[in-house]
Amino acid sequence: MTRFPPPLTGSAQDETSELRPNFDASGLIAAIAQDAETGEVLMLAWMNSEALRLTLETKRATYWSRSRGALWVKGEMSGHVQEVVEVRVDCDQDAVLLKVLQTGGACHTGRDSCFYRIADPGKLTFED
Amino acid sequence: MTRFPPPLTGSAQDETSELRPNFDASGLIAAIAQDAETGEVLMLAWMNSEALRLTLETKRATYWSRSRGALWVKGEMSGHVQEVVEVRVDCDQDAVLLKVLQTGGACHTGRDSCFYRIADPGKLTFED
Repeated sequence: MTRFPPPLTGSAQDETSELRPNFDASGLIAAIAQDAETGEVLMLAWMNSEALRLTLETKRATYWSRSRGALWVKGEMSGHVQEVVEVRVDCDQDAVLLKVLQTGGACHTGRDSCFYRIADPGKLTFED
Repeated sequence: MTRFPPPLTGSAQDETSELRPNFDASGLIAAIAQDAETGEVLMLAWMNSEALRLTLETKRATYWSRSRGALWVKGEMSGHVQEVVEVRVDCDQDAVLLKVLQTGGACHTGRDSCFYRIADPGKLTFED
């Protein structure tokens, strides 16, 4: 299992130059994938420490599938891989942002992005 | 407490026109805030059902503070409010994407975005 140093507290965590990911009680951190060229937000998924390490080292987006309980190299089956251009962490390091070059659709439905429906009170509208 | 209809399963959830948010075991859903004008990803936070309802109805981004255990109208104290232009849900409706007009910095550190550090194996680099 990959080990990262533990999170610090308060502003020390906000200002550290060390990667100290703040995994939740399930050992996971939220990961946003954003198209590096268009800025479109493509998906939100989860990483455990191994997925984060692999993503940083291989530059191929790798997540933890909560439903399957297994590492998931994005596009391994579909070919819809994500080449990682940049990884960012947020202030308290409980979320990461991947800027990716996406091959094919990011969504398992085949759409470019998982965020294809606009919500208003009481209903969803599919984007054009 | 705000009630939404329960999530469906599989592709029925992906293709429904009904808002059926898939809250986690803690009753929360991940919420990404993105600058509606620049496309910059600003922050990741959490919503319970009440926060989601209020965000949709008031068009003012409202989250659930896990640390304080309370609703949190973004900018209520700092003035750094988020006017919500659009709300999107992802395929299985366990994440929402807010496109916002951000007043002031989105991050509590005063920075525009919470994602101000670039991660490489072993270290973080602050953006210019």
